[in-house]
Amino acid sequence: MPTTSLLDAIRAIVGDRGLLTDSTDTAPYSEDWRRLYQGRTSAVIRPATAQELAEVIRLCAETGTPVVPQGGNTSMVGGAVPNEDGSELVVSTARLNRIRDLDPTDMTLTIESGVTLKAAQTAAAEAGCLLPLSISSEGSAQIGGVLAVNAGGNNTVRYGNARDLVLGLEVVLPDGTIWNGLRRLRKDNTGYCLRQLFVGSEGTLGVITAAVLKLASQPREVAVALCGVASPEAALSLFTRFQAHDPNAINAFELMSGLGMSFVLRHIPGAVLPLETSAPFYVLVELASPRPNAGLHAMLEQVLEQALNTAIVQDAVIAASDAQRAAIWRLREEHSEAQKREGASVKNDVSVPVSKVPAFIRQATATCEALIPGIRVVPFGHMGDGNIHFNLEQPAGSDAAWFLARDHAIMDAVNEVVQAFDGSFSAEHGIGRLKPYMMPDWRGGAELALMQRIKAAIDPGRIMNPGKVLP
Amino acid sequence: MPTTSLLDAIRAIVGDRGLLTDSTDTAPYSEDWRRLYQGRTSAVIRPATAQELAEVIRLCAETGTPVVPQGGNTSMVGGAVPNEDGSELVVSTARLNRIRDLDPTDMTLTIESGVTLKAAQTAAAEAGCLLPLSISSEGSAQIGGVLAVNAGGNNTVRYGNARDLVLGLEVVLPDGTIWNGLRRLRKDNTGYCLRQLFVGSEGTLGVITAAVLKLASQPREVAVALCGVASPEAALSLFTRFQAHDPNAINAFELMSGLGMSFVLRHIPGAVLPLETSAPFYVLVELASPRPNAGLHAMLEQVLEQALNTAIVQDAVIAASDAQRAAIWRLREEHSEAQKREGASVKNDVSVPVSKVPAFIRQATATCEALIPGIRVVPFGHMGDGNIHFNLEQPAGSDAAWFLARDHAIMDAVNEVVQAFDGSFSAEHGIGRLKPYMMPDWRGGAELALMQRIKAAIDPGRIMNPGKVLP
Repeated sequence: MPTTSLLDAIRAIVGDRGLLTDSTDTAPYSEDWRRLYQGRTSAVIRPATAQELAEVIRLCAETGTPVVPQGGNTSMVGGAVPNEDGSELVVSTARLNRIRDLDPTDMTLTIESGVTLKAAQTAAAEAGCLLPLSISSEGSAQIGGVLAVNAGGNNTVRYGNARDLVLGLEVVLPDGTIWNGLRRLRKDNTGYCLRQLFVGSEGTLGVITAAVLKLASQPREVAVALCGVASPEAALSLFTRFQAHDPNAINAFELMSGLGMSFVLRHIPGAVLPLETSAPFYVLVELASPRPNAGLHAMLEQVLEQALNTAIVQDAVIAASDAQRAAIWRLREEHSEAQKREGASVKNDVSVPVSKVPAFIRQATATCEALIPGIRVVPFGHMGDGNIHFNLEQPAGSDAAWFLARDHAIMDAVNEVVQAFDGSFSAEHGIGRLKPYMMPDWRGGAELALMQRIKAAIDPGRIMNPGKVLP
Repeated sequence: MPTTSLLDAIRAIVGDRGLLTDSTDTAPYSEDWRRLYQGRTSAVIRPATAQELAEVIRLCAETGTPVVPQGGNTSMVGGAVPNEDGSELVVSTARLNRIRDLDPTDMTLTIESGVTLKAAQTAAAEAGCLLPLSISSEGSAQIGGVLAVNAGGNNTVRYGNARDLVLGLEVVLPDGTIWNGLRRLRKDNTGYCLRQLFVGSEGTLGVITAAVLKLASQPREVAVALCGVASPEAALSLFTRFQAHDPNAINAFELMSGLGMSFVLRHIPGAVLPLETSAPFYVLVELASPRPNAGLHAMLEQVLEQALNTAIVQDAVIAASDAQRAAIWRLREEHSEAQKREGASVKNDVSVPVSKVPAFIRQATATCEALIPGIRVVPFGHMGDGNIHFNLEQPAGSDAAWFLARDHAIMDAVNEVVQAFDGSFSAEHGIGRLKPYMMPDWRGGAELALMQRIKAAIDPGRIMNPGKVLP
């Protein structure tokens, strides 16, 4: 348990504004976003500079006090909450919120970890650039957390994940030293690539305090269509047709099921299907280019016409205005909310190679339907990068508690299919506190042993975010 | 020194074909490509499978025998040669040369480390795809070495470096276990990103035996121009104009100096400047798109016309045929050869942020001319990614040996300017055996300490490529 003298020493570094000890103040930092975990902490530390944070961490290292780094606290897997015994201090990056530099020629953004993803996007847009990363929690999620979990989202098919945008990092290490790796270089082969070790390590190796991110160009032509298709196989055929024309133009390629769409139409006020007939599955495709006359609408029309003629697509509509584009996107974005309103559901954030998505959906559906008769399978997500949110809704009229008591049986059954297709049990959400127990099965042997050696080498006192990522 | 019984045990694993012990056979493996180092080894081991290699490494670990992994042996920094005392064994990946899988839907290539980059490019092309990495040594360089040094080349401006193409790896670790991380997933957040630690580690953490690489689409429209410009500042203005139109379309943006071009025209048979007047600097710009009618020629003409009208460009020619395109590229590719024929030169593979390239060239030129009156500055290279080969040619009529004796003074002077612009002393060639002594100055403190901890954690016996990368 942190001693009073430790907290006094920390107050001397960060000042009164930088230290919360009242339980009313610390409570929001102790509970995770999904309310899976109710933790407890005796103090939340909010340093205003990397130097302050480094001094705090040095004190924690000297006293063996465990630390939980926290950004926007929007982790889906409890990655940023303290445990229940009150021994862990929360270190919030919220006040490290300066934009240090934006260079439109180099297309780089140097930014502190407490800036929200939304604010970072806005800063890029104001300079005529695009920060090509978008996730639903972007209003609260902070850059540090986004990098710590290697966030994905809708545009991975084109721009990759958060990892792919990082040129440089500044990190406070578990011994309280600062590594300044804020280089803005496109080529730099000078030793081990440390930045990619910290990206995705979920705060278990250090606290990211600033980063250099690559920017892209703002799109000047955007074309969006909603297509009804008979099956995930047809959706894959459509994807390969766009790929054959120009993979670089595909900004998003999202799959939805007919059942999931019916939930949206039933529960979301104002939601309307802009197609004449409903379909077993739907695809939302978005093309974009920084050139104003890149011919994307013509390409979209051409591909869809061929797909209609060859019965790959049953029906399709191209958005004719910004409002129509937004309305189509809303059908996709409201999927989680509509599932919640429909009843209890079990979520699986999984990925397989893109070519295996149809076979995976078919087999995982059969497996779940055999396990729980009447279960309602509502897969949706980022087909273009192989990341499917394979969600299961309780059987109509069943008891929610009865269904949720079967969550682990369902997840295990789905994961068995994922494993058969060489997939991943955590595509974009990470491991956090929810999934370390799965690591030996999935990443065991040489891989987990390497991770544990690296953890021991960089954080020998094991003070950084204990109990997360590694079992 | 390796004992006879160790070599006998290794022979039992790899067979006679897999073990070279005759000094005539081992000699080519002991000397580096630039002939900077003449090493010696008692055996070259050429395993045919990752399993054989793993068994060999386990024996080496047990006996504390140091190992030097070697691919095509085209390192520019002596990264793949054994030392002079004969104690190190060379492990060649040449027989790990199978293409395991190519999936045109997933656009992934699963390939063993001994396949040459050229053969890998050919395999991709035969499937209608593009492996978007090209370096001058691609006919000999092997995939394992290309990844071990994180090779760059002409197309980094568009596709990134070798690192950016890697989805998965298979690695034999220093204790002889195999890590199979050959996943083909676009999203997979399950613990530390080990693959990026091995990429760029130059064989000091393990031996890469296979990789999953991302492929791109083959271009169907390509447009190339050669432009005469007054200065690197004008070249940067031209770059930002193309960037403002469509950064994704820029396949290459190469800078050459008027002096460097005059060496090419003087020494390379058949080389002709396709412009009416010579210029202080030249830019080669290549645009490409997977779409056959992407409008790139129109875009190229439009940008160049505006640049001519505003005096950013003095003169320009657009290639009207494949032959003209090849002839323009040849002027760029023969720069190294022409410099060699002109006389002795000192090479610096450095990088700075793209926006700082003009100021860097100006200041480094002044520094070198002050250091050695009459020195001839011939910077050229990948302006679009900030990587300049800042080469210095001996003063006309001077003594080559006298000039080369000043190589360290010249490199130090250039590097001082690089450091002032937050650049890197090794952009795309790596550290190898040539530059570890520079690491404390450039990457010292927390960064080098982290690297050394990681090395100790993964290779506690320090048997993997000793003396490379780390001082």
